[in-house]
Amino acid sequence: MSDQATIEGLQLTSNVRSSGQVEVALARVPQPDPAPDEVTVRVEATPINPSDIGLLFGPADLASLRTTGSSDLPAVTADIPPRAMTMLAARVDQALPVGNEGAGTVVRAGASPEAQALMGRRVAMLGGAMYAEYRTLKVRDTLPLPQDASAADGASCFVNPLTALGMVETMRRENHSALVHTAAASNLGQMLNRICLQDGIGLVNVVRSDEQVAILRDAGAKHVVNSSAPDFMASLIAAITETGATIAFDAIGGGRLAGQLLTAMEAAAVARMTTYSRYGSDTFKQVYIYGGLDPGPTELNRAFGFSWALGGWLLTPFLQKIGPEQAGKLRERVLRELKTTFASHYTKEISLRDVLDPEVIKGYMRRATGEKYLINPSLA
Amino acid sequence: MSDQATIEGLQLTSNVRSSGQVEVALARVPQPDPAPDEVTVRVEATPINPSDIGLLFGPADLASLRTTGSSDLPAVTADIPPRAMTMLAARVDQALPVGNEGAGTVVRAGASPEAQALMGRRVAMLGGAMYAEYRTLKVRDTLPLPQDASAADGASCFVNPLTALGMVETMRRENHSALVHTAAASNLGQMLNRICLQDGIGLVNVVRSDEQVAILRDAGAKHVVNSSAPDFMASLIAAITETGATIAFDAIGGGRLAGQLLTAMEAAAVARMTTYSRYGSDTFKQVYIYGGLDPGPTELNRAFGFSWALGGWLLTPFLQKIGPEQAGKLRERVLRELKTTFASHYTKEISLRDVLDPEVIKGYMRRATGEKYLINPSLA
Repeated sequence: MSDQATIEGLQLTSNVRSSGQVEVALARVPQPDPAPDEVTVRVEATPINPSDIGLLFGPADLASLRTTGSSDLPAVTADIPPRAMTMLAARVDQALPVGNEGAGTVVRAGASPEAQALMGRRVAMLGGAMYAEYRTLKVRDTLPLPQDASAADGASCFVNPLTALGMVETMRRENHSALVHTAAASNLGQMLNRICLQDGIGLVNVVRSDEQVAILRDAGAKHVVNSSAPDFMASLIAAITETGATIAFDAIGGGRLAGQLLTAMEAAAVARMTTYSRYGSDTFKQVYIYGGLDPGPTELNRAFGFSWALGGWLLTPFLQKIGPEQAGKLRERVLRELKTTFASHYTKEISLRDVLDPEVIKGYMRRATGEKYLINPSLA
Repeated sequence: MSDQATIEGLQLTSNVRSSGQVEVALARVPQPDPAPDEVTVRVEATPINPSDIGLLFGPADLASLRTTGSSDLPAVTADIPPRAMTMLAARVDQALPVGNEGAGTVVRAGASPEAQALMGRRVAMLGGAMYAEYRTLKVRDTLPLPQDASAADGASCFVNPLTALGMVETMRRENHSALVHTAAASNLGQMLNRICLQDGIGLVNVVRSDEQVAILRDAGAKHVVNSSAPDFMASLIAAITETGATIAFDAIGGGRLAGQLLTAMEAAAVARMTTYSRYGSDTFKQVYIYGGLDPGPTELNRAFGFSWALGGWLLTPFLQKIGPEQAGKLRERVLRELKTTFASHYTKEISLRDVLDPEVIKGYMRRATGEKYLINPSLA
């Protein structure tokens, strides 16, 4: 490959300075020649997921956001509250590339037959550093897309689809038969709803507005509960009783919701008991926190006995736990149902430079339900 | 046995009335003739454990405590706040006998050889209703005591010793190598400290006063951290780093302590990391809440990544999980080390009638460290 000219392209990085700012910037970086088991991909679509936003700006105060950098290579800088800096010690003064997943076309391939077979193919990719014009990565971190799939179709092949499937798989492996999901009107939530409808699994969708109730009802959801309604707890207990849900996946994290889920599961379990126990029911109740839409503290009133667990849940450790064979089966299902169950809907397509535009930043930082941004690095 | 006169004796019960009071009362109840596999025991010693107090008075407002009943059969009554009544629905208008464990002498025995072999023997007992002059129960719920053990020696054979051993066993089974314990100056905490010293297990004792630090230091504890000291978090992180503790057992429940334990474990894990991850360390951190000395809400700041779990822990489900053979081994160890590792120290010995004395109630409801009450139902 060394007889070819080096490919160079824009790459977006986030750098927390020891002086207490985060700088998000574009730089022109050369692509290494692909190793035998690698390919270089021209990135054509890469989504902005909540997990990307965490790496982009961390706990920065966006009111202090200002434009820095040059007109050719723009940048934005924002201040980080001093008390938040201690949590970031391990990433200080490193320009970290951003972007969990994406899709694009293979423009160079290493010498191995597996790499060569991908030349010119459209592939989905996982592995970070996707907010860039080019990405060189191992063949095993790519997924060749069906011929009729666009880069936008394949851009969100991994994080949301595998997270939704991972929740259902976790439910089964830990011997539960139905589940609860919060922030359920999200792209991920709608995907989970489609999986559960298709597989006949009881799902209680928890949302926080009537508009979100409508989104899920229109999508055929059977159980939708509005946490801002006055009868929230009664409706939640009724839906949990009907489905038998004893596990929940919570994207909110902060506030009282995780505890309310455990309390409602316990109320459903206690109603089935015939004798009193001051230790509560022996029905095991699990809530996994997998996001932090509310970064505030989690508050548990512990009105749910002693047979419960609250924990963190992340996709990568889950995939490691189930092993490559099982993970491969989940990936195959995603490809089979890419345009149906696992279809993502984007409301805005933006360029790499747009990611650094203060007005656009305000838009994607809102994390509004139904809004999802797609970066197309091939846009000017 | 039917040619013998029926044995009758005092029994203490707790009754939550639907009208919103709890009445704790003594009644004279006849003992059934023991079935072939049963014995009747004259109760000579039974401790007041925190779990007994929960059943005795529940969430009653002790400021409203008044003496009711007769001079022959005294009783006390206290009001229950209306919002707390919903949690008690399953026990309303039932006179529930109290007292988890105790020890005494077998005065009648069923026809089976196993029961007959216990006649006249001193035994420890588990199974509730121990706050009574007599208790008829299955042979398998008794544990014959060594000849040199008094009833007081054997009265706390089960709850504290098996809980302390259960913590160490849970630590091993869940692949941790050292542990943290809160409210560590309690009788249970001192027992756990002796087990860990003997077995060479790293233990971080968390207490809340200098007096409690001194109690544990005098008992040879290596790591004692005072949660009311200004350098609490730094000391906790240092002790966790030194021991490698990744599991904690928390008797407090409410407040920020459980979250602080996870935060300190995460800080120790992050210090060992060489690359930054915005999801925190991949070191799995577990906190089990096994008590509720602070009945207020649990507050978690979630500054500890995603690899963590918080849950309830109770002795009975633990013993069921490990099965009768393993549980038997733990019991054997308790008997072998009854007067050393598992010795309990009582500061007050009281009669059954004393349990209903408002002044005495104030004393045992304080749950002060180092104070432990023993009921001797054979006292007048």
